[in-house]
Formats: sequence, C-alpha cells, structure tokens
Amino acid sequence: MATVRISLFAPNGRMGQAIAAAAAETRGFEIADDGDVLIDFSAPDALGASLSKAVEAGIPILIGTTGLGPDADRLIADASKKIAVLRAANTSLGVAVLLDLVERAGKALGPDWDIEIVEMHHRMKADAPSGTALALGEAAVKGRGTPLNAERGRDGTGLKRQEGAIGFASIRGGTVAGEHDVIFAGADERLILSHRAESRMIFARGALAAARFLAGKPAGLYSMRDVIQSL
Amino acid sequence: MATVRISLFAPNGRMGQAIAAAAAETRGFEIADDGDVLIDFSAPDALGASLSKAVEAGIPILIGTTGLGPDADRLIADASKKIAVLRAANTSLGVAVLLDLVERAGKALGPDWDIEIVEMHHRMKADAPSGTALALGEAAVKGRGTPLNAERGRDGTGLKRQEGAIGFASIRGGTVAGEHDVIFAGADERLILSHRAESRMIFARGALAAARFLAGKPAGLYSMRDVIQSL
Amino acid sequence: MATVRISLFAPNGRMGQAIAAAAAETRGFEIADDGDVLIDFSAPDALGASLSKAVEAGIPILIGTTGLGPDADRLIADASKKIAVLRAANTSLGVAVLLDLVERAGKALGPDWDIEIVEMHHRMKADAPSGTALALGEAAVKGRGTPLNAERGRDGTGLKRQEGAIGFASIRGGTVAGEHDVIFAGADERLILSHRAESRMIFARGALAAARFLAGKPAGLYSMRDVIQSL
Amino acid sequence: MATVRISLFAPNGRMGQAIAAAAAETRGFEIADDGDVLIDFSAPDALGASLSKAVEAGIPILIGTTGLGPDADRLIADASKKIAVLRAANTSLGVAVLLDLVERAGKALGPDWDIEIVEMHHRMKADAPSGTALALGEAAVKGRGTPLNAERGRDGTGLKRQEGAIGFASIRGGTVAGEHDVIFAGADERLILSHRAESRMIFARGALAAARFLAGKPAGLYSMRDVIQSL
Repeated sequence: MATVRISLFAPNGRMGQAIAAAAAETRGFEIADDGDVLIDFSAPDALGASLSKAVEAGIPILIGTTGLGPDADRLIADASKKIAVLRAANTSLGVAVLLDLVERAGKALGPDWDIEIVEMHHRMKADAPSGTALALGEAAVKGRGTPLNAERGRDGTGLKRQEGAIGFASIRGGTVAGEHDVIFAGADERLILSHRAESRMIFARGALAAARFLAGKPAGLYSMRDVIQSL
Repeated sequence: MATVRISLFAPNGRMGQAIAAAAAETRGFEIADDGDVLIDFSAPDALGASLSKAVEAGIPILIGTTGLGPDADRLIADASKKIAVLRAANTSLGVAVLLDLVERAGKALGPDWDIEIVEMHHRMKADAPSGTALALGEAAVKGRGTPLNAERGRDGTGLKRQEGAIGFASIRGGTVAGEHDVIFAGADERLILSHRAESRMIFARGALAAARFLAGKPAGLYSMRDVIQSL
Repeated sequence: MATVRISLFAPNGRMGQAIAAAAAETRGFEIADDGDVLIDFSAPDALGASLSKAVEAGIPILIGTTGLGPDADRLIADASKKIAVLRAANTSLGVAVLLDLVERAGKALGPDWDIEIVEMHHRMKADAPSGTALALGEAAVKGRGTPLNAERGRDGTGLKRQEGAIGFASIRGGTVAGEHDVIFAGADERLILSHRAESRMIFARGALAAARFLAGKPAGLYSMRDVIQSL
Repeated sequence: MATVRISLFAPNGRMGQAIAAAAAETRGFEIADDGDVLIDFSAPDALGASLSKAVEAGIPILIGTTGLGPDADRLIADASKKIAVLRAANTSLGVAVLLDLVERAGKALGPDWDIEIVEMHHRMKADAPSGTALALGEAAVKGRGTPLNAERGRDGTGLKRQEGAIGFASIRGGTVAGEHDVIFAGADERLILSHRAESRMIFARGALAAARFLAGKPAGLYSMRDVIQSL
C-alpha cells in the first residue's frame, strides 16, 4: 500500500493536530509540506485560499470546514473542474453511512412522517445547527424528493408545524464530541437513526480514509459516500 | 374512601374528556356539576373565569393549563388567599418526581455542569418550550440557587453558550404524548433525567390524584410535589 | 379501491380485536367469516391449524405470531407452495423499513463494528428476546454475509464478547408497547437504528396493509418488505 | 490546600495510569511510594493484599475494584475498624449523584413501578452486569425498603416478570467508556435516570476527589456519597 503524503492547510488547529496524530499511528500516511492531498479544516473565510493552493499545486483537496458562507458552493464548483474536491460536513465513516440510511428512509416513508433532527455538541461550538445536522436534512429531503423547508430554533406560542417541514434543534453543553438523531415521527410510531461520536479522533481517521481515496483522483466533486463505497 | 366529586371547567376539551374517562374507570370519583373540586385544563385566557368560578363556589381548583400569560401569577396568588389552588404544568406523577430529582441534582452538581432541557411532543402542539420544560428549568435553578437565564431556540453562527444558562430545545412531530430530558453536562460525563409519557391518560390519572388531595384543603398554593408526598 | 375481506383466526385475542378496530375505522376493509385473506396472531402451537385453514380455503395468510417453534419453517415453506404466506415478526411499517436499513448498515460497516440489539416491552411479555429483535439480528448478518452467532442473556464473570457475535438484551416493565435499538459499535463511534411503538394499533394498521398486499397474490413466501415496496 | 500524596496499589494498570495522569494535571496531588492514601483499582483477588498494606501503613484506602468475591464484605468490614475504607463501584461524581437520585426515586415511586437497569460498556469488559449497575439496583431497593430480587440475563420463553424484581441487562461493544440507565416503568409513563461517561478520566478525577476526602479520616466505612456531600 503506497504511502499517502498529506499536506495540512491549518496544522496547528484542533483538527490539524488530530489528523497529524492519527497519521502518526496509522501505517501508510505521512504529513508533508508538499503532499499528495491537501486537507483544510480551518475556518469558513479561508476557503478561497485553501482551494487556490490546491489548484496551484494540482492536487486533490478535502474540505472539512463547516459553517461555510453563501459563495462556498460556487468556489467549490469552480475548483472541482480542475482538481478533485471532497466536501464533508463530517468525515466520520459512521456519519457517512447515516447519511445514506437517512436518504433511504426518507424515500421509503414519505411526507406523512415528520422529520426532526437533533444534535448535541460541547459548550464551545459556535454554530447551530451543526453542519452535519444540515447535511442530514438535505439527505432526508433528497430521499423524499422535495425541497428543504427548515424549521429552526422553535420558540414561542401559536406555532404550527408546517407539513413537510424538517425541524432542527441544537443542544450545547459539557464536552460532548458530537451526537445526531434523525427522527421520523409517524402515527403512533417513530424510526430514529442516530450517531454518537465518542472522540474527535473518528473525524481524523475518516479524513485519512478520504485522503487515501482522493490521492490521484481526477477532477470532480466527491463525497464521503464515495469513500464508503470504495472501502 | 369517600367519593370525590369533580367539576370540569371544560368538559368537552381533550383533557376534560380524558379526566371523565379516568373517573369512570377509577373507584371513588364522579363527575358532577357542583363538585368538591374544580379542574381547569382549558385555555390561557379562561384562567380568570375558572378562578372566579372556584372562588364563588368556595372549592379548591386544579389549574392544568399551560402557556399562561404574564398576569397569571397574580391571579393565582390572589385566588389562593381564598381557596386551595394547585397549579401544575404537568399532572403526571412521574413528572412530579422528576421535578424533585432535578432540583436535587441542580443543588448537588452546581453551575460547572451545563443544563439543557429537551422536549418532544406531537405535531399539533402550539407552544414551545412546553410548560413542563419551563417548570423543569425553574426546578434546576431553584436547586442551584441562581436565577433562570434561558437560552431558547438556538440558531445561527457566532453563538456562545453563556455560563450558567439553561438551554431549551423543542421537537415536534407525529403523535408523541410527551417526552422530556434534563441533561446535566459536565467534563466528560453527563447525568440525564428523563420522563416518557406513553398516553395522555397519565395526566388524567394524576389530575384525579390531585383532586383527591385538594378536596377539603384550606386556602393556599399547592403543587404536585405536595400530592406525591401525600401518597 | 376494492374492499378486502379479512378473516381473523383468533378474533378474541388482543391483536384480533385491534385489527377489527382498525378495519372498522379504515375505508376498504371488512371482517368476514370467509375472507379474502386469513390473519393469524394467535399462539405458536396453532400454526398448523391456521395454515391448514388457509390452504383449504385457498386464500393467502398473514402469520403475525412470534415465538414459533423449530418446525414452523417447514410448515410455512410447505404451505407457501400452495398459497401466499407472509410471515412477519412485526407488522409495523416502521419496523419493515428498519429491517431494510439494518441489513444495509450491516453490509456497509462490516464485522469490525460490534452489533447489539436491545428491546423493551411491557411486563407481561413472556418471550425474550422479542421475535422482532431476532428478525433484526437476521437482517444484520444477512447484510454482513455471515451466519448468526447470538450472545443472549449475558450474565457472569470472565465473559468475552466473541468476534462477530450479535448481542441481545431484553428489558421488561410497565406498559411499553415495544422499543427496539440496533447498535453498531465501532472504534469511538456508534450508529444506532431505533424503532418506538407508541401503541399496538400500528401492528393492526400494518396488518391491514399486508392483507391488502396479499389479496389475490399467487403462492409464495412474502415479507413486510414486499408490502413496503408496494406502497 | 495541602498536597495529598497518593500511593497506587497497581500503578501499571489502566486505572493506575489514568490516576497518575490526572494527578499530574491537577494541583494538590502527587504520586508517592508511601502516600497519605492508598488507591486499589486492581483485581478482585488482590483485595486482601491491598487492605493489609493499608492497615499496616495505617492509612485510608479507596477500593475501586469491581467484581469482588463473596468474602469481600467481611474483609472490608474488618479493615474499616482500623482504617478509613471507601468502597466504590464507580468513582465518577455523576454516578455518585445518580445513586442518590435512584434511591430517592425508588422511595417516591414504590413497587408499582418496575425497575430495570441497563448498562453498556466496551467489548473487553468481562463481568456482567457491571458493578455500577448492581450498586444502582441496591440503591433502588434501599429506597423502596425491600430486598433485592434480581432478574439477570433474561432469555427464553414462558418468562414472567416477578413483582418487585429488578431486571439487569448488559450491552457490550466498541469502545464505550460506560453508560447506565435506570428505568422506572409505570402505567403509561417512565422515569429514566441515566449516566454517560465519555472517558475513563472521570473515574480518575473522582478517585482524586475521594483521596482528598479520605486523607486524615478516622477508621470507618465511607462511600462516594460522603465525598459528594463534602464538596
């Protein structure tokens, strides 16, 4: 198995350090200034810089940043014409499988089942809902074949849940690494699809799996689902 | 055991019908126009009328209505000088025990543990958070000995959980009778205190227990905790 | 939509009564002595009799009985050569979708992820694990492509979880209609697929959907998954 | 705040190393050969040796070992006449609070509510139920005022939940640090008291808190509840 050389866009960030630690304990990876793949888990406003760096080097890039702004879609689409780009709100393999199952359940159950997405993270997390929660909502409505109509931050009186809406709720506290529940609520029964992250190392390990997948890939837009199917 | 005669302020409402059904299947209760106790599970703006009716008849009243307005505290305090008034956001016996445990845990754990309260109800529920969720928040801060600083409906970026805040999140969907979780999130551990209602009959049965407790009681303000301790 | 006439093998049983109630409130169904479809939710030792009755009448049969004995497979296989037979440990539509998702997750995640199945039912349920829990275990190993190696009723010291085993745990208490969790536990993360039944009516409604699917079907062995895909 | 010198009975064990790590990052503790307090998280058959060592040195001992044999009670009672002994199935502060709440709920709810205790731990854990689960069961029946009648490892047919029994179920898989749920299941409602450990460091931190509490204490038998109340 060839060694994959990984270049970290933000080596001193929390995820940069976690990926370096995971690479050190996993055979077949090394951290390098000029790598085979660039990994960016930095901040939303650095997206343009990291994409430019990858395009100039002509290497694939993994974007793990969440909370990206409105022009991120365009920047990523442009870059993906020249290099391989994998954008993931969450790089854990378990979440990649969850996204697939949520889409499938959304298709099987149809709009009679109300969908609610609940996530809990540590007290320092600054954006709500989490990027993963939003991605799960997109997967659910893709399965249903309807546009996303989000109900976020319910609070007040005289509320009425809209037909077909997806509700989002965010819980913050302690040191929780990340928990997501997708609830399909029907008449007298519920189907609940959940993920529990016990440590941030799962995102680093999943990022390594994504980097191995990306190494040498042609230009295009990829997802963690492609990584899962390649395992 | 003497029969308790119950007068229903809103006999045709969902809870009015449930209480009549529970009374029919429980020994020692009967529904009557002029009862020993008045029960009001109607709507916030009917509070003045139900209190007046009880005061005029000189009988105790159980207020089970949630979503009461800002002058409810004063109306209830005034009435409780003349008759026995029991106000409960939730008449289930399990929730009464939960309120006691939450206050106790709030006291034992202190402000280093973040508190979050999550509730799920059926798709038709119009107020968020539920009255029970708010009562649980009050119990937690009573235990801590601090005022309630609520974070409701988190949504957006650049958020920062305030120290000592209590977060509330509301989930709506399907036919769920009522679920509440109180999460105490510390460093690397969580204590979670939960209640699950499987049917609305528990509120009706608890209302009967409260009515038996109230029958013949002197003027004053009572709670479901008093009912629990009398069992 | 043609009316489906349903013959109940055990009309006075708990599920027999629930199906009659569901048929009364749903358009397009009626209960009849000589129906288009026979439904059996009786007891394991009545299986031979109900299959014989359906074969003699030449009509499809839905078998919802759980805890069937060792020769049930053969009896059902024999009957399914002559009539349409649908065997379901659980007739709720949500559980049918869950079975499909569990098979899919078992395939995607592979044997590195430990699988545990937990179920809770009311205090009167006499068999453990539930038939639905066992069916979920079968779905998981079908996805994995390995035989079922069950660890049931763990208790003692010096235990060691066997590689590739599926653990089963049964919780009994109160009036719980039925809860199932399938836990895929990997390194530092878990995927949990759950179903919550709020009332037994979901099994009756699902049985009606199955009866409509079965009406007029040729001989063969069917499952709730076929019903789901026909909706 | 005086420094507490801790002597580790099994410094190379998993918990020995965790306590040393916690002591290194917490002000006011140091590891020493001849400490103010002895801590034993080794193995059941080493109990006699660790108690003897503490008695000879005339210092308090914290026993964190689980799965202790039948004569442990007598050995511990004997030693506690000469030195301070704190025995804890679980040294986390959250579990100490949980034990208190479970006893209180057991008292408030009475025997009509069925009690079930469910725990999940990583795949390597060799004893089932966990020592913490058993301690929670003891707390529940202490609240009720009845002896412990345990139903462990339910498996089979023709089972009947005994009145007043406490059920135990053990789930094993992945890397789970430790999860416990105490379920009080009544008619149509449940009260669920849960603890989630995210990492083993909480046991080490709680052990340090217990060591500080024990330093200089007179002979006697103590519990984590005493530690909680001293904070």
